Amino acid sequence: MKFCCHCGGSLKLIIPNGDNRERFVCPSCHHVHYQNPLTVVGCVAEWENKILLCRRAIEPRRGYWTVPAGFMENDETACEGAARETREEALAEVSTGSLLALVDVVHARQIHLFFRARMKTADCGAGEESLETQLMDEDDIPWNDIAFPSVEFAMRRYLEDRRRGVENLHMKEIKWRKRAK
Amino acid sequence: MKFCCHCGGSLKLIIPNGDNRERFVCPSCHHVHYQNPLTVVGCVAEWENKILLCRRAIEPRRGYWTVPAGFMENDETACEGAARETREEALAEVSTGSLLALVDVVHARQIHLFFRARMKTADCGAGEESLETQLMDEDDIPWNDIAFPSVEFAMRRYLEDRRRGVENLHMKEIKWRKRAK
Repeated sequence: MKFCCHCGGSLKLIIPNGDNRERFVCPSCHHVHYQNPLTVVGCVAEWENKILLCRRAIEPRRGYWTVPAGFMENDETACEGAARETREEALAEVSTGSLLALVDVVHARQIHLFFRARMKTADCGAGEESLETQLMDEDDIPWNDIAFPSVEFAMRRYLEDRRRGVENLHMKEIKWRKRAK
Repeated sequence: MKFCCHCGGSLKLIIPNGDNRERFVCPSCHHVHYQNPLTVVGCVAEWENKILLCRRAIEPRRGYWTVPAGFMENDETACEGAARETREEALAEVSTGSLLALVDVVHARQIHLFFRARMKTADCGAGEESLETQLMDEDDIPWNDIAFPSVEFAMRRYLEDRRRGVENLHMKEIKWRKRAK
């Protein structure tokens, strides 16, 4: 970050008055350019006991499996974002339910929110960012080829809760690319 | 947003290849400037049945009451952010617990996460952004002078759950400045 997006002036990294950490500030127009974590929203979606998984067509982790998830956009709720990602990546329509997992991915400056969801029909397919989409039985899930630790964490907690007939919220902090068993 | 923060070039609002919505894109360096919701983290903190409230010293809603909350920063978890805001605004140390409320404040392009918390000691005071801080009994809470609907929502659900001896997660979408009873 070098230039002010409002006036084009050269930014300086300083601690603004009344603040306690360095920010990029424009000496010309005095705008403070805050940098904050991004929210990723996704869902573990089910159809007749099967879980909806997509194989990624894009980096990072192209070729690996994930549940539908992506960056939350402006002008939508977290649930709407999770449903939109499912529509875009898996061509599937879902009704979102309870919050399944809140995962802090601190090194990536992201917070991941996964919701439980039910598919409205069995229809699904590969969206532009997916190589393929499958409805998988629990025993067929390719645990060694899951794209991200937060996704593995959400899926494992989902399946455990389903077996117990509960819907808990699970919180976790994930650092770097450790596996989250 | 007019200028590229990387190269200073003039931005254009276009739909990038493979995308489905308008973004600010730099024709010179091709950087896409995404704009995404911000996360606000806070907590309803308790000491011997009293709730920790701050009266805001800054706009918006200067003079109104809130629980400690503010924008989540990079390099912290959501819980750490809620505890940091409590330290900054109420000069109080807390242990955060379960997630109390997830509130989508869509028009403000924010998602608010409120955690339950316990104060480690009775010590508290007015941080730089607070006019005063008080530990309040439930009956003394100034419901007509709460700064934000998301805060009122979180506090009401907290107190209801406390009466019932449960710790549920409450989700809500708040539009504009309607009261959230």
